[in-house]
Amino acid sequence: MTASSIPVVWSPDTRFHDPKHEIWVGATTPAVEVAERVDTILAALAGSPLRDARAHGDELLAAVHDPELLAFLEGAAEAWTAGGYAELVGQDRVVPYFFPTEALLQGMPPTPAVATHGRVGRWCYDTMTLVGPGTWPAARAAVDVALTAVDVVAAGERTAYALCRPPGHHATRSGYGGSCYLNNAAVAAEGLRRAGHERVAIVDVDAHHGNGTQAIFWQRPDVRYGSVHVDPAAGWFPHLFGHAHETGAGAGEGANLNLPLAEGTGDGPWVEAVERLASWVSGSGASALVVSLGVDAAADDPESPLLVTAEGYRSAGALLGGLGLPAVVVQEGGYHLPSLGGLVAAYLEGHGS
Amino acid sequence: MTASSIPVVWSPDTRFHDPKHEIWVGATTPAVEVAERVDTILAALAGSPLRDARAHGDELLAAVHDPELLAFLEGAAEAWTAGGYAELVGQDRVVPYFFPTEALLQGMPPTPAVATHGRVGRWCYDTMTLVGPGTWPAARAAVDVALTAVDVVAAGERTAYALCRPPGHHATRSGYGGSCYLNNAAVAAEGLRRAGHERVAIVDVDAHHGNGTQAIFWQRPDVRYGSVHVDPAAGWFPHLFGHAHETGAGAGEGANLNLPLAEGTGDGPWVEAVERLASWVSGSGASALVVSLGVDAAADDPESPLLVTAEGYRSAGALLGGLGLPAVVVQEGGYHLPSLGGLVAAYLEGHGS
Repeated sequence: MTASSIPVVWSPDTRFHDPKHEIWVGATTPAVEVAERVDTILAALAGSPLRDARAHGDELLAAVHDPELLAFLEGAAEAWTAGGYAELVGQDRVVPYFFPTEALLQGMPPTPAVATHGRVGRWCYDTMTLVGPGTWPAARAAVDVALTAVDVVAAGERTAYALCRPPGHHATRSGYGGSCYLNNAAVAAEGLRRAGHERVAIVDVDAHHGNGTQAIFWQRPDVRYGSVHVDPAAGWFPHLFGHAHETGAGAGEGANLNLPLAEGTGDGPWVEAVERLASWVSGSGASALVVSLGVDAAADDPESPLLVTAEGYRSAGALLGGLGLPAVVVQEGGYHLPSLGGLVAAYLEGHGS
Repeated sequence: MTASSIPVVWSPDTRFHDPKHEIWVGATTPAVEVAERVDTILAALAGSPLRDARAHGDELLAAVHDPELLAFLEGAAEAWTAGGYAELVGQDRVVPYFFPTEALLQGMPPTPAVATHGRVGRWCYDTMTLVGPGTWPAARAAVDVALTAVDVVAAGERTAYALCRPPGHHATRSGYGGSCYLNNAAVAAEGLRRAGHERVAIVDVDAHHGNGTQAIFWQRPDVRYGSVHVDPAAGWFPHLFGHAHETGAGAGEGANLNLPLAEGTGDGPWVEAVERLASWVSGSGASALVVSLGVDAAADDPESPLLVTAEGYRSAGALLGGLGLPAVVVQEGGYHLPSLGGLVAAYLEGHGS
């Protein structure tokens, strides 16, 4: 079996999200999570069987996310246009400026904000995750991609690759950020649960810790989350989470495993960390696997200081594929357009071999 | 007694804070809380006795604010420069991009962020309150201005005017925002408490609700807070707070009074609201008064939709001055440079008469 035999589930609608820029510490910077990512991945996987995403209802999405977040995201672009912010200050994308942190709330009971510009910060926890008219259709299509991949696996394929975009692992139950809106991997895990797998493991090899996925399953023993990523204690996103001491809580205590790595880490220690994650999954009793496949740990990637190669990703695929579990591989980050597709292909070749 | 006899306490150091711009919904807009505000007020009060602020220790400041916030603000500009954000993305002012809201935290215990760009959002709750090299010296000088005004009143003057800048009433115990860094009015109230006044009242006539001051005294019966402002339910800053149902909590229950007004409200209902606040102070047993004097409720002001005139401010002064209490009048907002000074003068003429 080679990569070309792993079904690639996709949707052209995932291209609708077109962030022209990001706002980072008040500066307008070029967007990196661009629609061309879909094309370069598709090109690299030419020859693999393509499957179009099938529309799914909202049931699993609502199991993972706060319905109020979903309603906000679905209506945000229209509310923004109606608010006239493009005319007022030239901002045609939904960007928050005001945030209900503890520094603001101080234990006082807030009354929900009325103005759209005052509401965004309740749901969006950073300024770099912009919403435009195409964001909801794309994010919702990515969920359909993930759920269709679950269907493919439930129907008997050992592995399916979900070409999700925008990525999802920074999206929490009630928040979006980190270029993520809806948590595709969490929805896929929930889908595998509903398909009859009593225990599901998520392994996240994106360069950044998947705080959203961790949060969603933080107190659950049935879906465990393990991640290798650049150490947030070295100053990296998501800053507050991704440390080794975060092991879950309540019934989920011990079902969360973080393996942070130092800046500059390359294949050797990175593949060893993936091996630890594979071993952890193997001992967990999970009967199905979700892989959050970010390829931004690669040396060329502008968004992380890790130095993983295509061979590293191939090895990671071999280790996780070697578990022999039904697996849905969900695309997360990866921003170096010239190499992005090849890294995904390398992972899938490893996984499928 | 006319305005010219009310001592005007000021410090040239309050000019050091020079925000060139604000970031609002991701757009860079011109700063409105500019150093020229000091000059136009001073010009309008020409003839009043001027008093230079005297340096005060940090004791009262630390009684009002989290020492960690103070340490952050004092070192923020230097940390920003060291972080190289000006070279990286052209941003030479401290601006947050990542915020520990509940949408992010989700009940998980956060580990403090390491990178400066990841830390700012813990303390700053919006993107429009920038910190530069002059911000801490100016904000700290404004506290000295407020405390010197307290000294002037404690020494026997009935009223002193504290020409504070930057303003303070949106600054909470552990957070800054809304163009405010340190809560001058709260420090003044604390100063009057320590000077022997068992009960102090703060009346806030700024166009915006003073959520920071409300929060600092939310659970305290000894310092009551009353405010007239544009209704946050009409979409105005500070969005989540300033509603009539916010009356304090615990021992402070009933010691907080908000009188929100509709957009477009002019002198009549506004002065009536000030009259209600004066009556509420009169019945409270407070033996000293702090007035948060924002003059942005004026018709010409670009930052609010209220339509108060100089005569309205003069009437407000007469009502609050008529209480006969020792009073520290602390400057808050007011952004229309041509009329700003005249509005302050009108208030003080009313207060002193």
